[in-house]
Amino acid sequence: MLVDAGIAPDSARADLTATIAATDVEEVAVAAETTGNPVPGLVTLLRDRTGGEPARWLHRGLTSQDVVDTALMLCLRDALERIHDETVAQVRRLAELAETYRDSPMLARTLTQPALPTTIGMKVAHWLGGVLDAADSLAALPALPVQAGGAAGTLAAATELADSPGDAVTLSGRLAAALDLTDTPPWHTTRSVLTRVGDALATCCDAWGHIAGDVAIGSRAEVGELAEGRGGGSSTMPHKSNPVLSILIRRAALVAPSLSAAVHVASAASVDERSDGGWHAEWATLRTLSRHTVVAAAQTAELLAGLVIDTDRAAANLAAAGDLLAEQRSMTELTGRTARRDYTGAAGHLIDVVLQRARHTTGVT
Amino acid sequence: MLVDAGIAPDSARADLTATIAATDVEEVAVAAETTGNPVPGLVTLLRDRTGGEPARWLHRGLTSQDVVDTALMLCLRDALERIHDETVAQVRRLAELAETYRDSPMLARTLTQPALPTTIGMKVAHWLGGVLDAADSLAALPALPVQAGGAAGTLAAATELADSPGDAVTLSGRLAAALDLTDTPPWHTTRSVLTRVGDALATCCDAWGHIAGDVAIGSRAEVGELAEGRGGGSSTMPHKSNPVLSILIRRAALVAPSLSAAVHVASAASVDERSDGGWHAEWATLRTLSRHTVVAAAQTAELLAGLVIDTDRAAANLAAAGDLLAEQRSMTELTGRTARRDYTGAAGHLIDVVLQRARHTTGVT
Amino acid sequence: MLVDAGIAPDSARADLTATIAATDVEEVAVAAETTGNPVPGLVTLLRDRTGGEPARWLHRGLTSQDVVDTALMLCLRDALERIHDETVAQVRRLAELAETYRDSPMLARTLTQPALPTTIGMKVAHWLGGVLDAADSLAALPALPVQAGGAAGTLAAATELADSPGDAVTLSGRLAAALDLTDTPPWHTTRSVLTRVGDALATCCDAWGHIAGDVAIGSRAEVGELAEGRGGGSSTMPHKSNPVLSILIRRAALVAPSLSAAVHVASAASVDERSDGGWHAEWATLRTLSRHTVVAAAQTAELLAGLVIDTDRAAANLAAAGDLLAEQRSMTELTGRTARRDYTGAAGHLIDVVLQRARHTTGVT
Amino acid sequence: MLVDAGIAPDSARADLTATIAATDVEEVAVAAETTGNPVPGLVTLLRDRTGGEPARWLHRGLTSQDVVDTALMLCLRDALERIHDETVAQVRRLAELAETYRDSPMLARTLTQPALPTTIGMKVAHWLGGVLDAADSLAALPALPVQAGGAAGTLAAATELADSPGDAVTLSGRLAAALDLTDTPPWHTTRSVLTRVGDALATCCDAWGHIAGDVAIGSRAEVGELAEGRGGGSSTMPHKSNPVLSILIRRAALVAPSLSAAVHVASAASVDERSDGGWHAEWATLRTLSRHTVVAAAQTAELLAGLVIDTDRAAANLAAAGDLLAEQRSMTELTGRTARRDYTGAAGHLIDVVLQRARHTTGVT
Repeated sequence: MLVDAGIAPDSARADLTATIAATDVEEVAVAAETTGNPVPGLVTLLRDRTGGEPARWLHRGLTSQDVVDTALMLCLRDALERIHDETVAQVRRLAELAETYRDSPMLARTLTQPALPTTIGMKVAHWLGGVLDAADSLAALPALPVQAGGAAGTLAAATELADSPGDAVTLSGRLAAALDLTDTPPWHTTRSVLTRVGDALATCCDAWGHIAGDVAIGSRAEVGELAEGRGGGSSTMPHKSNPVLSILIRRAALVAPSLSAAVHVASAASVDERSDGGWHAEWATLRTLSRHTVVAAAQTAELLAGLVIDTDRAAANLAAAGDLLAEQRSMTELTGRTARRDYTGAAGHLIDVVLQRARHTTGVT
Repeated sequence: MLVDAGIAPDSARADLTATIAATDVEEVAVAAETTGNPVPGLVTLLRDRTGGEPARWLHRGLTSQDVVDTALMLCLRDALERIHDETVAQVRRLAELAETYRDSPMLARTLTQPALPTTIGMKVAHWLGGVLDAADSLAALPALPVQAGGAAGTLAAATELADSPGDAVTLSGRLAAALDLTDTPPWHTTRSVLTRVGDALATCCDAWGHIAGDVAIGSRAEVGELAEGRGGGSSTMPHKSNPVLSILIRRAALVAPSLSAAVHVASAASVDERSDGGWHAEWATLRTLSRHTVVAAAQTAELLAGLVIDTDRAAANLAAAGDLLAEQRSMTELTGRTARRDYTGAAGHLIDVVLQRARHTTGVT
Repeated sequence: MLVDAGIAPDSARADLTATIAATDVEEVAVAAETTGNPVPGLVTLLRDRTGGEPARWLHRGLTSQDVVDTALMLCLRDALERIHDETVAQVRRLAELAETYRDSPMLARTLTQPALPTTIGMKVAHWLGGVLDAADSLAALPALPVQAGGAAGTLAAATELADSPGDAVTLSGRLAAALDLTDTPPWHTTRSVLTRVGDALATCCDAWGHIAGDVAIGSRAEVGELAEGRGGGSSTMPHKSNPVLSILIRRAALVAPSLSAAVHVASAASVDERSDGGWHAEWATLRTLSRHTVVAAAQTAELLAGLVIDTDRAAANLAAAGDLLAEQRSMTELTGRTARRDYTGAAGHLIDVVLQRARHTTGVT
Repeated sequence: MLVDAGIAPDSARADLTATIAATDVEEVAVAAETTGNPVPGLVTLLRDRTGGEPARWLHRGLTSQDVVDTALMLCLRDALERIHDETVAQVRRLAELAETYRDSPMLARTLTQPALPTTIGMKVAHWLGGVLDAADSLAALPALPVQAGGAAGTLAAATELADSPGDAVTLSGRLAAALDLTDTPPWHTTRSVLTRVGDALATCCDAWGHIAGDVAIGSRAEVGELAEGRGGGSSTMPHKSNPVLSILIRRAALVAPSLSAAVHVASAASVDERSDGGWHAEWATLRTLSRHTVVAAAQTAELLAGLVIDTDRAAANLAAAGDLLAEQRSMTELTGRTARRDYTGAAGHLIDVVLQRARHTTGVT
């Protein structure tokens, strides 16, 4: 980078790709105990191994937080891309299911109790609405920024190297472009990009947790309307087919809110030009949160792909619920008209609204 | 509404404004213990007091959750508007301060320790960046929706009243328009609008917590760079001038992450066509969270309006920190050039970037 | 107090009971905005209204935090006592139910799926175990302490008044005794008593949430094994009988973890001799948490008192689950013995262990 | 175990110690994706590798949750022991420091502002009180239980193997004894032991966070009263000595509350005879929480061992704070006596109370 910008000599160019291996993690981790973050140990290792001009110019103009924050952005970008791909698959599959089961009667349950008739398509459309909302929250995220502020967030060293503030800012822009990140002023102590990513991840887990919760209930033997295509076996009870995916998705949904809260707690504790603990609290938290979310994204897509819907049981449960039409009778008393044939209201219209939104989101028409 | 739509007779029209008073809260609250929410008690009271046709037609087509969720939207809209107004005031004031103290030297501190020279303007610009980020998170919120799904979220009763699904959907749109909310399919169990509002409120509190944390440190006697215009007194220690606003803002920032997490926990627990507890968990949580945030918004605006900055102390603290220019010397060793005059790098440029963004946000040029 | 200790003159004695009324809350609240807590405004009001020697001696030796923290202890003690009473009622009722339904067959479900036969008594015994654990967590709480440290937690003013450190410490002990609280050194910035109370409250809500979750599932129409004695009605659907108590208990269980986390966040932020926000974050949080918990305690006792158990449905669901005895056959293959008559294992023994523990806790034999 | 109990034949005995290696983790983890937990894959592996009678008898009478929960107890016990050892070291060191600096004057700060004189010993005694409270919360934990309930928590398979419920219960007791855990009825869905451990870990982090927060402030250049013995260096700023231990301890303190909240959320979601996600949410959360806490325990001990206290700076800061004795003058106005020599009140007495408690806790006299 510094070579390309004409700041460092050509002899400082080096390909560091092969310099570091997974086996170096232990050494870097031990060094991190002393300095509080892994970068100084890593820089030492890289300089020792490259030597000469590359070693002299390596890491110049940067501070540890620049390296860690930028690396975090690259990791989160990867996670967000994988989540996005899974949500697109989820949206497609849910749209398909809503269409297929558009008119299949089922029992609407409120506060756990039989309420009114609805359709399976309407229920799926609500799930779909939730996933579309989650996708919207991902789409509303700010562009992920590079971090390149130098020791105090003023680009002081970079300005010295580039010999002008404007050129230092350009250098930061070059780095952003090389990594395909956005160029912004340093955000060493304004951490909202991290809380917003954490919140969007939790929002995704909420939407999937809702689906998983419904599948867990629907796959109870007494309900029997839903089943995972591939249930998980039990070591001692061969008759069992556990809704393993739903359960693991629920795991993520139960934990994600606390993890995203921790990112906020860290963000709110920001002080000075580099925080005294808030910054350090983000790493493990975001790693765990994004791992849970990426896994739950794939599991939800898999759950939906294999979901087995038993329309007979759904219809039977509706029938078994007895007379649900007292509300309808109250209405006809008011209107003086004969009752409409079924009592699923505008379900079909509402499904169409959600499907339209799904097409818009996935770009499929 | 039903009268205007031509569904209910003219005789069903009634002005309910004076029907209910604050003294009825107790009765409605007691009734809520039995039904789990305040709406049935409220409807009974309204019907008893209006009587006749208005009583017969009141609440028809709606369910308790429609009323509570829509009311929540109106309350949150009010809160969000007040917060927005305060952030605009904050942005204006911070832009002013960044301009005024653009070149005032101060000590940059990282991990609590003296790091490099910076400027007060640069520090203020970071605060401003945080508030602009928070304002962005408010701006990225989805439009607040009306809730009007009826007992099972299918508009069944409304369809019966309106005699067609299309007209029932139109009725929901009329309600949205009357309340200036957005018309969407029912979201009884897809709660992301609430988590997103909660997350944005926490994001605001984070940004203000950052400012308050810096003011709390800067107003320590040993630092003395910052002071609240009006400090809070002590009943027994007349020499004290406590940074009360900073402290109360920090209070909100410490608590907001947990409250927004609770909204996610509730959202992730969504099941069926109305949740068995998740819905009920939202009310008190969002009330507390939005109250804390509205108060902290005003307190931050007040803190910034009155903030006293002691440039002499800032300069003295910088001078007292001793030789901070070793990094600069490493750079000049590499470049072979004479060191630049000061070592605040591109601070001026970075301030301009943030000020430009502020002007764009507030619409002031 | 100071009069009784011989420090203030007899003429300083005053009965303040009638000095303050609920209508003063507004004035004290407004004053709290300026000082950051309600005590200075309250002291001013009391002094204005009493006048003379009582006014001169009022609040001497104390600081605002002494008053707020001690008041908080008294409020929490009241809440804890009410919760304790409800848990005793719960334990008694659960013991009764475990005895009554000791041998009633029901289906054990794991990961939502039919697993093995169990008994209703065994299930109730697990609920009982959970409530006993919660009661243990209440019993393990440290004694609630008085707070009486003076402005810097050194009893400096009290020492001046009492004319010796020993007498100042005695004075703090007198205050503790008068309020029936424990006498400890000041804990202005060591807040574990609050986090431990918060954690115990959350632990109670967890145990009740477990019961409520099971009742919510058991009262689904398709399961039908459990019902709340008095279900909540619906304004438009007369066939409904909602498990309102379970739902409201679940509400508390969903929210309590976040609230107790907020008390920890505040505690961990303790600094100096009085915290700059951590202290202030505790009040609203503990009020909300203890209110939720007291209400949920009563609701759980009411839920259990009225719980309707349908042994026929339980037996029928077990029968409908089909062959659950593959595990048993694997065991008899290993042992070479004939299978035991039922396959509920040591359920009876385990129920007895829990009942024994319940008798020990409630002091009933 | 089954062999020792005379249930399985002698030929079923096997030493499994060398059967499994760290390299098997991948295979077990992959299998866990299908079954939702790692035990079935592990059992398959063990049976494949041992074969014959040992394979036939392995895992009989147990369920996956028995294995995971018991393993979790062993891991947590190890963590708790390490934390206990570190707290003892902390208590000893803090007692030493409180003694050494008993009379060293320093400035008490409340709400960040100079309040009154105090002593360094008094401040340290508060830290010590916090650590003793944390140690008390560890000591108040229930004994860690074995989990051995079998598939539905009824010991059904074990009863079949042992041919009597009483012997099955005895078998569970044997397992508990062999692992030095407590024998209790199955707790598959009553998870308070985990929430209580999580809460105690958070309570420890709070206490250390308080110390770390004070050290972070005290080591600011402008305050200069405290310093870590070994500060962390900066890659580019050789003049820096960062309070790395304090910062990393604060990291744990910022994150622990959220993690312990997640354990409560999971506990409150308990249903049936094995939870559909709550159980699975505990593993990663408790691993992260206990790792953070063990590390912070050692870091706090190290921080205290090396803590450098500058009594001159402390005295100078006190002197610089100016006239702090207005409160004292108010008191002497009331008493009519001459002011006492210093104004540190009963600090010495209070230190003694805490030291006495420390001796009681550590068993040192």
